[in-house]
Amino acid sequence: MIAQTPKPPYFAVIFTSVRTQGDQGYNAMSDEMVESVQNQPGFLGFESARNDIGITVSYWKDLESIQNWKKNERHTVARNNGREKWYAQFRVRICKVEREYGWEK
Amino acid sequence: MIAQTPKPPYFAVIFTSVRTQGDQGYNAMSDEMVESVQNQPGFLGFESARNDIGITVSYWKDLESIQNWKKNERHTVARNNGREKWYAQFRVRICKVEREYGWEK
Repeated sequence: MIAQTPKPPYFAVIFTSVRTQGDQGYNAMSDEMVESVQNQPGFLGFESARNDIGITVSYWKDLESIQNWKKNERHTVARNNGREKWYAQFRVRICKVEREYGWEK
Repeated sequence: MIAQTPKPPYFAVIFTSVRTQGDQGYNAMSDEMVESVQNQPGFLGFESARNDIGITVSYWKDLESIQNWKKNERHTVARNNGREKWYAQFRVRICKVEREYGWEK
C-alpha cells in the first residue's frame, strides 16, 4: 500500500480533494484510472487515502511523464467529470522528491 | 481542510504510514502535534487522511524549517513512540513544490 519508489530524485503529484455527495460513476472511473496509470511510461507508484478529504499522491520518473499522463484521453475525460460532478474542491501540487527514507517494524 | 499554501516554491513532507492495532496514546499525541506545529516557524499548513494507509502532507517555507521541527523535543518523543508503538511501517519523502493549482466549484 506504501509505494516502493526508487532513489530520489523523482517527482510527485499531490492531489488533495473534497468530494461531492454520491457516487455518480466516480468509483468505476477511479478503478479504471488506477488500472490504466500502471501502464503509463514513467509511472512509479501511488498512495491514496480518504476520510474528510482525499489525498492521492502519484510518483513519476520526470515531469514529461506527468505531462503525458495528463494528455491521456480517458484521464482527460476523468478530469472533466471531476470538475462537473465528483469534486467540490481540489488542489494539485507538482513536486520534486529530493530525499526519502522508510522504516518497517 | 485543504491547505492554503503560498505561491511555489515551498516544501512538502509526505508522511505515509500503516498503523499498528489500538490507540496506545496515538490520538492524544496526534492532537498535541497538530496544535504544536501551528506555532512552528516556517509551517505553512497540512493535509491528512487515513483509511487503509494514512497520508499526512505538511507544507513548509524551506528545508531549515523542516529540520527545526524535527529537532522539536515533543516531536522527537512522538517519533520515538511512532517506531515503538504506533506504526507498523512508514515512509517520509521531502519534496520541493514547484507548481500548484486549485479549483473550487
